[in-house]
Amino acid sequence: MTAPFPDSTRPEVAPPTGTSTVAIDLGDRRYDILIGPALFDAPATWSGLPRASSALIVTNEVVAPLYLERLKKQLTSHYARIDEVVLPDGEQHKSRESLDVVIDHLLARAADRKTVLFALGGGVIGDLTGFAAAIYMRGVPFVQVPTTLLAQVDSSVGGKTAINHPRGKNMVGAFYQPVRVVADLDTLDTLPDRELSAGLAEIIKYGPIADAAFLDWIEEHLDALLARDKSALAYAVKRSCEIKAWVVGQDEREAGLRAILNFGHTFGHAIETGLGYGAWLHGEGVGCGMVLASELSHRLGLVPVDFVERMTRLIERAGLPVKAPPMIIERWLDLMRVDKKNEGGEIRFVVIEGLGKAGMRGASDELVAEVIAAHTVPAAR
Amino acid sequence: MTAPFPDSTRPEVAPPTGTSTVAIDLGDRRYDILIGPALFDAPATWSGLPRASSALIVTNEVVAPLYLERLKKQLTSHYARIDEVVLPDGEQHKSRESLDVVIDHLLARAADRKTVLFALGGGVIGDLTGFAAAIYMRGVPFVQVPTTLLAQVDSSVGGKTAINHPRGKNMVGAFYQPVRVVADLDTLDTLPDRELSAGLAEIIKYGPIADAAFLDWIEEHLDALLARDKSALAYAVKRSCEIKAWVVGQDEREAGLRAILNFGHTFGHAIETGLGYGAWLHGEGVGCGMVLASELSHRLGLVPVDFVERMTRLIERAGLPVKAPPMIIERWLDLMRVDKKNEGGEIRFVVIEGLGKAGMRGASDELVAEVIAAHTVPAAR
Repeated sequence: MTAPFPDSTRPEVAPPTGTSTVAIDLGDRRYDILIGPALFDAPATWSGLPRASSALIVTNEVVAPLYLERLKKQLTSHYARIDEVVLPDGEQHKSRESLDVVIDHLLARAADRKTVLFALGGGVIGDLTGFAAAIYMRGVPFVQVPTTLLAQVDSSVGGKTAINHPRGKNMVGAFYQPVRVVADLDTLDTLPDRELSAGLAEIIKYGPIADAAFLDWIEEHLDALLARDKSALAYAVKRSCEIKAWVVGQDEREAGLRAILNFGHTFGHAIETGLGYGAWLHGEGVGCGMVLASELSHRLGLVPVDFVERMTRLIERAGLPVKAPPMIIERWLDLMRVDKKNEGGEIRFVVIEGLGKAGMRGASDELVAEVIAAHTVPAAR
Repeated sequence: MTAPFPDSTRPEVAPPTGTSTVAIDLGDRRYDILIGPALFDAPATWSGLPRASSALIVTNEVVAPLYLERLKKQLTSHYARIDEVVLPDGEQHKSRESLDVVIDHLLARAADRKTVLFALGGGVIGDLTGFAAAIYMRGVPFVQVPTTLLAQVDSSVGGKTAINHPRGKNMVGAFYQPVRVVADLDTLDTLPDRELSAGLAEIIKYGPIADAAFLDWIEEHLDALLARDKSALAYAVKRSCEIKAWVVGQDEREAGLRAILNFGHTFGHAIETGLGYGAWLHGEGVGCGMVLASELSHRLGLVPVDFVERMTRLIERAGLPVKAPPMIIERWLDLMRVDKKNEGGEIRFVVIEGLGKAGMRGASDELVAEVIAAHTVPAAR
């Protein structure tokens, strides 16, 4: 589908005006994504949230020193008590054990079912906190405060929450929407380069699956994005959220269309799980996974080889890996067979059927092996 | 509210015809409760369920020898693979650990997201299996096959799923609806007397909160119910499900009205948690809890003392405890303060405001202490 959803104005580089808002409209569960600089310290950012006697901020050891006190300061006028849980950093902590820490904390503090949870951090914190909010007392409100580019353009939007399992990523979770998303672009100033690149992977994704013109725009402005040009980032975040909002509005629970957002993710999840959570960042797995999924699309006769080369070049320029690690093929296939998109035996992939248009296809084990072999780092001898 | 919902015909004792159906209507998530004898072995009972390549039956060590093979036999024509998880029996196993057993089993068998879960057992199995279905791959379909009276009239209907936590009952869970409920009345033939009584507690509950005439009917037919007269049970189960279906249809997520279904439960949960899960059955806690909640309603000036005496007599006739165990008052208050109905400090209770009409009221610690003292077994000296 070639951008059948309304585009906002697409300036050369978006003007550094104030906050822009993208609405997620799910009927009775409508909420706003606030995107802009200087949102953290603006009282308006935090007004109108659900009232409660207490709030719990969940964050990690890297983000806490940077933003925890600033968030608490803004929330003190809204909640009589503000608790915090500070987890270790990293994908390996998006686990059952971390979930238990959050739930046990809520119970130990006798948090009631109006308590508001704040997820302050990247995708790991957002997914975990959202899932804790979904199941504590069968559901309490939560606010996403994404501080990484990846979380701002993807994981904080759309209500997918989950924890990982040693056997697979995001295997336990819920569809549960936040009451607000606050994406302060200033938090990207402190983001390590590697995480900036990881976020770019998910931004790049939106081009081939839904908006060919956005792919052109990304290619033109990649240097500005890498240089953290605030107005380039503002436009990239906003456009990514618009596309995701449109997809999620059509298919909240991934009965069909929503699966296209997983372009590159089946291969990427296998890398993440195979190497152990934390070895590669999620966005790195997605970057390399998009190269493989593009190759698969080509070998299925859907796109020309030029497309594979174009995607590979862009992903590499974004600072992301384009060669897969040397896992044996049986391990790849085992890992991809537990992916949620599969039903029964055949492994299914999101493929590109033309610029700006994605679909789902099954592929034989032999074809998958060829695709992986064509883009793998040679094993050490 | 005095039964503002449609009543079915109310025969002296319902004729032993075939299956009756009560529909739960939640818009796009409509499903049927099938109630009747001989449902287990009727192929029609299991037709039309979601298609999948595999099914998982979750049950316990008491129910498995009675019904597991019969259920599997019916399901073999629908699912290529049927797995089973047999848990120990008892409320103490409605735990995080049991949940992990079910989830780990699904992952070990690479169950996909169309896999259908069957909860074969009482309330513990139903609540736990429903919660596993709610969170496995963010939600798979499940079928409730309640084999206790309590589960047939209450816990299998309405989509509340949960596990317990050492700090409180049902503290972690989800609102997640089954795709069908199959209440075979023949399963009540094998139910221990103590569990029959526990189920009667939840049936009795529906009278004072919603339907004064049903309370009269229960008083008239209690001996038939205790003697397991099939047509008396059929009517009691059907009427209970109708009332619950109406309440849940109004307020699925317990924003208000639905809380009335917890009449007796705040006191009852405190007993269950205080003594350790499994010492008292849930229905026993609810029975005694209704005596205390009736006393509280009386002391708040809402109902005459006759009502307390009437409820106490009926609950005692049903074979349920009407005296609370000798817990110290501080323990009572601590346990009741973590109840989900509370918001902030004050403890809130479901009270009877008149026959067939329930509401929510806060009560001072002093008043609560007087209520409990009036209905407590003296401590051993």
